[in-house]
Amino acid sequence: MNIEQLQKQVDFIHEIDKLKYIQRKTRLFNSTRTENDAEHSWHLALMAVVLSGHSNQEIDLLKVIKMLLIHDLVEIDAGDIFLYDTAVNHTNTEAELAAARRIFGLLPSEQADELILIWEEFEAGETAEAKFARAMDRFEPLLQNRSNNGGTWKEFNVPYEKVVEKKSIIKEGSQVLWNYAKKLIDNSVEEGILQKGTDTD
Amino acid sequence: MNIEQLQKQVDFIHEIDKLKYIQRKTRLFNSTRTENDAEHSWHLALMAVVLSGHSNQEIDLLKVIKMLLIHDLVEIDAGDIFLYDTAVNHTNTEAELAAARRIFGLLPSEQADELILIWEEFEAGETAEAKFARAMDRFEPLLQNRSNNGGTWKEFNVPYEKVVEKKSIIKEGSQVLWNYAKKLIDNSVEEGILQKGTDTD
Repeated sequence: MNIEQLQKQVDFIHEIDKLKYIQRKTRLFNSTRTENDAEHSWHLALMAVVLSGHSNQEIDLLKVIKMLLIHDLVEIDAGDIFLYDTAVNHTNTEAELAAARRIFGLLPSEQADELILIWEEFEAGETAEAKFARAMDRFEPLLQNRSNNGGTWKEFNVPYEKVVEKKSIIKEGSQVLWNYAKKLIDNSVEEGILQKGTDTD
Repeated sequence: MNIEQLQKQVDFIHEIDKLKYIQRKTRLFNSTRTENDAEHSWHLALMAVVLSGHSNQEIDLLKVIKMLLIHDLVEIDAGDIFLYDTAVNHTNTEAELAAARRIFGLLPSEQADELILIWEEFEAGETAEAKFARAMDRFEPLLQNRSNNGGTWKEFNVPYEKVVEKKSIIKEGSQVLWNYAKKLIDNSVEEGILQKGTDTD
């Protein structure tokens, strides 16, 4: 690999630092401080290491981790979209695709192509790896909201039914995790930190 | 895997959130905001994905990434130690070992043992994977200081010779990266953001 390629890689490494400024709606565990996308991506990657044994199917863990490390990079240009925001489309918007091309495009072309493919695979959610990676992405904020007395569920008046609908894709990656997650969601209603059917739509 | 083991994994996932509060001395690229350990770990893991082709030896990239995702977890208990702090020992202190045992010990014992071994391998710096992972850990703050007009070099009056000494372990992981890094360090002197021989010791 020549020096020109290394310089491109360094430019990419520099650019992706901006992920540390993208704030999510969800807050850290037992905290009022919002989480940023870089911290979130780290947490999901390490969750995948620890939880991979619960995957429904055999998975290539390295690919899952790559997905999780890069899955939010497009938000550097396109911004964070809240899971329960009903006004916007969540997957593969034109803005996100353009962001992927620009940001991964900083890399040598072979690496850019590989990472764009992995990002698209994550977004499509069809392979075993994508399903498990997406399960991580849904599981972490569930734990965070639990630890924050309802967190974004309360803050944005998200009802039980919507939470179940959005979180149920966890089961595509891991039935074991979904069984556990579903119990946490049900318990949240009993504990009064999540309400049934109070949404306006 | 039974539910008791999953609960242990969730307890670990909850605990490691604290890494997001551990502040490093180094600041984000072109920024005055200090970096936290979780963001730092994410950045290094993705750097490893992008730069692995420059490793001196063939490496197991998954293992390198695991190392980087967990390498600072002991700081939850033991705190961050600045690279240029000469008053404290940096590697494998009793406090760090106790921290590793407590934090990884939250996991089911087989996983705890695996991650403690990987952390110890990183700390020892002897395998190809550890050498490459440690090269990432030294390379990122070099790029950050360059982007911050000298950053911690200026702030803590670190001389050129000390920077070369501390950064030169990059070459154990990647000669290509070290050649590049050495040029950046030399350029920093020419540009006046790093001084030769001004340290007091």
